[in-house]
This record gives sequence, structure tokens and C-alpha cells, in this order.
Amino acid sequence: MSVVNLAAMLARFDENWSPKRIARLNDYDVRIVKVHGEFTWHTHEETDELFFVLDGELIVQLRDGDDVVVHPQELYVVPRGVEHCPRADVKTSILLFEPSSVVNTGDAGGDLTAVVETLD
Amino acid sequence: MSVVNLAAMLARFDENWSPKRIARLNDYDVRIVKVHGEFTWHTHEETDELFFVLDGELIVQLRDGDDVVVHPQELYVVPRGVEHCPRADVKTSILLFEPSSVVNTGDAGGDLTAVVETLD
Repeated sequence: MSVVNLAAMLARFDENWSPKRIARLNDYDVRIVKVHGEFTWHTHEETDELFFVLDGELIVQLRDGDDVVVHPQELYVVPRGVEHCPRADVKTSILLFEPSSVVNTGDAGGDLTAVVETLD
Repeated sequence: MSVVNLAAMLARFDENWSPKRIARLNDYDVRIVKVHGEFTWHTHEETDELFFVLDGELIVQLRDGDDVVVHPQELYVVPRGVEHCPRADVKTSILLFEPSSVVNTGDAGGDLTAVVETLD
């Protein structure tokens, strides 16, 4: 593979809640996603999920806990089995690290379920 | 876990070539490391290794290829089995994603082999 520049990758799409694969590491993906507004409540029963905020501000709402606010250059891991709903009140870009098998909506499904396109 | 701020974590140590674990995701680690100078030639036979440069400039020297230069906000994955030797001509900070079992010097061992401390 070649070097992946995050700014260049972020410039290649505009849609929200549609993760793009920018690298693979073993059976894991590095994905970037733009978000604005509220996602859907869901759970990943089989895996932790890592959010690393590149710009904007991410609020990880937790069913059984206080909201977690994640700023640029901060990361947060949602443990497996924890119901959560991401929200962004401003346009926000996030890097995700998770198994390649992860579906963005977890157990919830629905219209926001995205096929992960590869940018290369 | 709580939110992890990269700048705050980087401020907590100065030594080079000694990765610190700042988060776990399943059986993977998120590590940060400061580097300056040349590391050691080595190979990870069992895993890919991801370098994400936070500041400075990383040169990934490859035994069988051209040097790869990685700038801040860029990432590069060294595939498993590929012999490499990181080098930084200026002080550089890097975020690593890799299995928790990874030893920094891979098959090479030697004095630069580090025990990974957890910052929390």
C-alpha cells in the first residue's frame, strides 16, 4: 500500500454516516466517516469500537451512562455490548478502527446501514 | 474507559522508542511512541503494523523497497513479513495500532526491545 493522507481522503466525499475504508490491518479496517446530527441506537455484541475525532465534536450517547464528549485528537472506545448512539451537533469527521466485519448500525439495521466503500 | 487526549498522553513521557499503551480494542492496542534517530531492522511475521504520524516525520526504510516518508496526519501499514527499519531525522510522535502481543523489535530482539507500559 501507499501512504494515506487523511485530509486528502476526507476531501473525496461529503455524505454523512457512510464510513469509507482507507486502510486494512490484518482483519481490521481503518475507516473515516463524516457525521452530523444523530445516528441510531445500536450495539455491537462482538466487538469494541474505536472513535478518534479528527475535527468537530462527537457526542457518544450511552443508554446506561452519561454522554461522552470527544474532541479532535481524542479517542474513545465503546466496549462490546454497550448500547450507544453517536451524535454530532456540528459537522464532524471521525477515524474508526474496528474489525472489517463490523456493520455501522450493529444490531439495529435500518436505513442508515451502509456498505463500506474502499477509498484508494 | 474515559476519553483519551493524545496531547495529554504525549506530555507524560519523553523517552524514545518506548511505546505506551493508551487504549485497548479487543486484543489490539493503541500505542503512542516518540522516536528520534534510527530504530533496528526487524520483521513482524504474524501481523501488519500501522503507523499514524502525529507530529514530526517518519521514514519507514524497507529492505526490499524505497523509503516511505510519512507526514503528520498520514498513516502507513507495513504488511506482515516485510523487513523494515523506522527512522526519524527530527523528533517525531506516532500512534500505533497493532495486536497487543506485538513486541516492538519483532524478530530482532536486542536492547531496544521495550516492555509496553499502560498510561491511564
